[in-house]
Amino acid sequence: MKKIVLLRHGESEWNRENRFTGWTDVDLSEKGVAEAARAGETLLREGFRFGCAYTSFLKRAVRTLDIVLDRMNEDWIPVTKSWRLNEKHYGMLQGLNKRETAEKYGDEQVHVWRRSYDVAPEPLAADDPRNPRFDPRYAGVPAAELPATESLRDTVARTMPYWQCEILPSLARYDQVLVVAHGNSLRGIVKHLKGISDEAISEFNLPTATPYVFEFGEGLNCVKDYFLGDPDEIARLMQAVADQGRA
Amino acid sequence: MKKIVLLRHGESEWNRENRFTGWTDVDLSEKGVAEAARAGETLLREGFRFGCAYTSFLKRAVRTLDIVLDRMNEDWIPVTKSWRLNEKHYGMLQGLNKRETAEKYGDEQVHVWRRSYDVAPEPLAADDPRNPRFDPRYAGVPAAELPATESLRDTVARTMPYWQCEILPSLARYDQVLVVAHGNSLRGIVKHLKGISDEAISEFNLPTATPYVFEFGEGLNCVKDYFLGDPDEIARLMQAVADQGRA
Repeated sequence: MKKIVLLRHGESEWNRENRFTGWTDVDLSEKGVAEAARAGETLLREGFRFGCAYTSFLKRAVRTLDIVLDRMNEDWIPVTKSWRLNEKHYGMLQGLNKRETAEKYGDEQVHVWRRSYDVAPEPLAADDPRNPRFDPRYAGVPAAELPATESLRDTVARTMPYWQCEILPSLARYDQVLVVAHGNSLRGIVKHLKGISDEAISEFNLPTATPYVFEFGEGLNCVKDYFLGDPDEIARLMQAVADQGRA
Repeated sequence: MKKIVLLRHGESEWNRENRFTGWTDVDLSEKGVAEAARAGETLLREGFRFGCAYTSFLKRAVRTLDIVLDRMNEDWIPVTKSWRLNEKHYGMLQGLNKRETAEKYGDEQVHVWRRSYDVAPEPLAADDPRNPRFDPRYAGVPAAELPATESLRDTVARTMPYWQCEILPSLARYDQVLVVAHGNSLRGIVKHLKGISDEAISEFNLPTATPYVFEFGEGLNCVKDYFLGDPDEIARLMQAVADQGRA
């Protein structure tokens, strides 16, 4: 059975500080490093051997992948990085504390910004130093494709071509493939694979550093999906993500 | 000016224990991790920004590269791994202590095994579990190309096609390229670039985790080369490598 494992990066410095991160390139926290190591040990124990791996352009995802492959002694496998797996771009919200933002604008508005399918936060100004057009890592991305803010719909729209043209076809060559990315870029892939509606996807929360396995049958149809780990612990992690935006 | 930086990995567990390592996949020591971080900080301070990086299939090189890119905040650049950048294969010597081997066979024989251009140690038997044909990471390498021992000439012969067909041509696209590999695979590249004789290359010792910069001019001719760091410290590190095989 062909398998793709989706893994959200471990806790970052700004997850811990409860700030909107988006494309800001923050590092893993110490807890995040430990979470990544545990994910690698779980995957090794469960017998996974990846043929290749994909990750984003952001440090917290790349480091999570490095740590997972180190724990699995799979340092040597090919790794491909793409901006298309980056977190949702949070526009002007990037850097703000989620609780303070909720106190100022109300839980409901923050929930809309975090979880509505179609609403994007205010974009970063063209001359804002945080605008990705100033970051050399995106020099190869056409200006028309480079976001200054994103709704979840926008994130899904730029993630799915990469899923369809790169990640899924890699199963022709490899039996098991690993994707280490972010809450929202992975949410787009899960929405597609499980046919989740635009409304329901808002309430679906991916726990950090918890391997999420998808099995593919005939014609690469997705036939089964499950998390690796203790179900109670996973439920607790999912609720913790949901609670982040409450005042 | 186009530049390629060669970097030997930081101290490994077996460098510290003074054992012949070759293709054995040992980890960095704590000192090796610190050396890698310092190399990354030096490269950042000296203004290097790499377009892409190459490394071997071995953990000590991959981890050194991961740490360097982390320190430089260049986690996102494309990284390509190849078995052709692996350390020289040491055949039956892999795992033996260099000092004990020197006491048993004499300094001269060990120096021949370590540094002669044409002499390879006894090969690993076809059924030796250490034989790379049992390691899934080499499943994609044709059996005829997969070594069970190597002379330095053999190592150079399988490294140079990768230098010529992949690494050097990458300068067409990028101004600065990083190669993190091993004492002997890098020695082959240095021999080629500086036109060092088969005899003289034996006495050339690459210090660990010390960036070695090559500058390329018109037609990608190598016009200049220099180490980054304190010359006295570099001389000391090179002597330490030379001394490892003495009883």
